Amino acid sequence: MEQNLENSMALLERTPATLNAWLRDLPVAWTNCNEGGKTWSAYDVVGHLVHGEKTDWMPRARIILNLGESRAFDPFDRLAQFRDSKDKSLGELLDEFAKLRAENLRQLRGLGLHPEDLGRRGRHPALGLVTLSELIAAWVGHDMTHLHQISRVLAHQYREATGPWSAYLGVLQCTGHSA
Amino acid sequence: MEQNLENSMALLERTPATLNAWLRDLPVAWTNCNEGGKTWSAYDVVGHLVHGEKTDWMPRARIILNLGESRAFDPFDRLAQFRDSKDKSLGELLDEFAKLRAENLRQLRGLGLHPEDLGRRGRHPALGLVTLSELIAAWVGHDMTHLHQISRVLAHQYREATGPWSAYLGVLQCTGHSA
Repeated sequence: MEQNLENSMALLERTPATLNAWLRDLPVAWTNCNEGGKTWSAYDVVGHLVHGEKTDWMPRARIILNLGESRAFDPFDRLAQFRDSKDKSLGELLDEFAKLRAENLRQLRGLGLHPEDLGRRGRHPALGLVTLSELIAAWVGHDMTHLHQISRVLAHQYREATGPWSAYLGVLQCTGHSA
Repeated sequence: MEQNLENSMALLERTPATLNAWLRDLPVAWTNCNEGGKTWSAYDVVGHLVHGEKTDWMPRARIILNLGESRAFDPFDRLAQFRDSKDKSLGELLDEFAKLRAENLRQLRGLGLHPEDLGRRGRHPALGLVTLSELIAAWVGHDMTHLHQISRVLAHQYREATGPWSAYLGVLQCTGHSA
């Protein structure tokens, strides 16, 4: 399936409500637990998504459209949420994510992109040349990666509790590619 | 984390709204696609969850409470949705799932289980002796397995479209334990 801007936006616009339905007011026994060590909790993941809305996807799209390959994107700080989420409740982070995502999609739509714009190129600091189309598809894939991670982190809390069923539960076999 | 009935129900009651926010009215280019071959689409997964509400979790809980180990659970038909979902839209399946889940949780709450009830045992046709506590934890883990699967199936549609970013997207490294 090729990247299609309307399809991408349809999925991107649903992520805040999906997270809201899943996580808001869920007991902190679920939302504050991680998979051990320096892995992330659902709370950490939402903070990470907030930071991505501020510094990653739309800022990079604008660099591609305004500067092309002449200036590499700023590296993305994958640990910013451990600084920025301080003193914010999960509910506040969910609200912030919903507001930022809606505004970013409004701006993306406002760019009035033509099919040929999607082929315009920019320079990723590690991956090298990438297209605007790939950037937008990666934004979608990044949402899916973190929904995938949240399902895994939550299931992990019941790893022992499921007893022999653990062998049947696919999510418990996942080794955590996105940590 | 031990199985805690209130925590389990908090997550179980959120799954229908999570799926609703994520999938309702999403373009069928997303919801009808699978990972190739006989793998499942998001539409297939919702049909599978509907069937589970009808025949798996609460019926098995009642067998444990009424008959104990004397009668094995009926085997679960993992492919029932390919027969039962026929002629139903995704929206209809989402509605049906929400209604069945709410009714099942109402019945679970109505059982007025005491902590010692959670240790009562039944007989799984393949796994052998299991407890009511493990059954309820597995119900939660089963929800998480299928949210995990849906994120993976959707991301798969953009596997090529993300270009070099595919190396960074954890969900695209997942090999599909739950198919």
